[in-house]
Amino acid sequence: MLKMIFHIDEIDRWPMVLKNVRNSLVAEPESMIEVLANGGAVVFFMIHTKTLESDWLDLVNKGVSFKACRNALNEHQIREDSLPKVVEVVPAGTIELAKKQMEGFSYIRP
Amino acid sequence: MLKMIFHIDEIDRWPMVLKNVRNSLVAEPESMIEVLANGGAVVFFMIHTKTLESDWLDLVNKGVSFKACRNALNEHQIREDSLPKVVEVVPAGTIELAKKQMEGFSYIRP
Amino acid sequence: MLKMIFHIDEIDRWPMVLKNVRNSLVAEPESMIEVLANGGAVVFFMIHTKTLESDWLDLVNKGVSFKACRNALNEHQIREDSLPKVVEVVPAGTIELAKKQMEGFSYIRP
Repeated sequence: MLKMIFHIDEIDRWPMVLKNVRNSLVAEPESMIEVLANGGAVVFFMIHTKTLESDWLDLVNKGVSFKACRNALNEHQIREDSLPKVVEVVPAGTIELAKKQMEGFSYIRP
Repeated sequence: MLKMIFHIDEIDRWPMVLKNVRNSLVAEPESMIEVLANGGAVVFFMIHTKTLESDWLDLVNKGVSFKACRNALNEHQIREDSLPKVVEVVPAGTIELAKKQMEGFSYIRP
Repeated sequence: MLKMIFHIDEIDRWPMVLKNVRNSLVAEPESMIEVLANGGAVVFFMIHTKTLESDWLDLVNKGVSFKACRNALNEHQIREDSLPKVVEVVPAGTIELAKKQMEGFSYIRP
């Protein structure tokens, strides 16, 4: 089984990241996929739109996990309890990226 | 022997990627190198110029493989049979990136 | 112990890279961290300011290593002996990135 961690730290890369994740699941539906956001990319989690929620729910339902860096949330003054429930907060995004690679995840930075 | 996969998904990163590949081969001529293009970077394969073809042929002759993501080709309405013969098409670029890392390739994203 | 190599090849990504490194060390003080600069990012090493030197010295004192690609230095006409002493020069940045990943370093490209 393929394990992939996608890294995003710029908000304008989200369309590419979500497209990459969707295409990965079409090609390999059994893949284990995580999306780790830090930097300005975490602001995206606060943009609630019908389209976004629909896209997200679809990917979440297919087993994709979305994680946000606490340092980035703090820097952008985003309260953790205001995040969508599907987003998990990690203490430091870089450490998550490093640990997942040690666990055999392939790193992809769209 | 070093194995490297270069990931490019933005067309304006090609000069940096090609320079990186050339420099890698100068430093370690026996390296196994693949360049995987997805996103808008695949459009580059349709830009036929003498310079480009010369650069490419040189790298191809040195064993570098160039691969393009089929999803990206479809999105940019590029027919596979119109691609230069040296370009191999893969079903999903992200899956190629993940599999190659599992096979021991180092990932580099210029 | 976590081992991480941060890759930077664009000068405007330095604030993000330095922030990432600082946050990594706060979360995991025992991490082994290297920052590899190639491309236009090497110019940054010539920008001597009190703030920068202070930031650097702090990270260097915590064990972070900073390396610069010789090809990039040559391209930007930067003499190696004009670099800050804390910067180590490697023959080719890409080869350093590949070798470190083979040694178990996780790759992060902010």
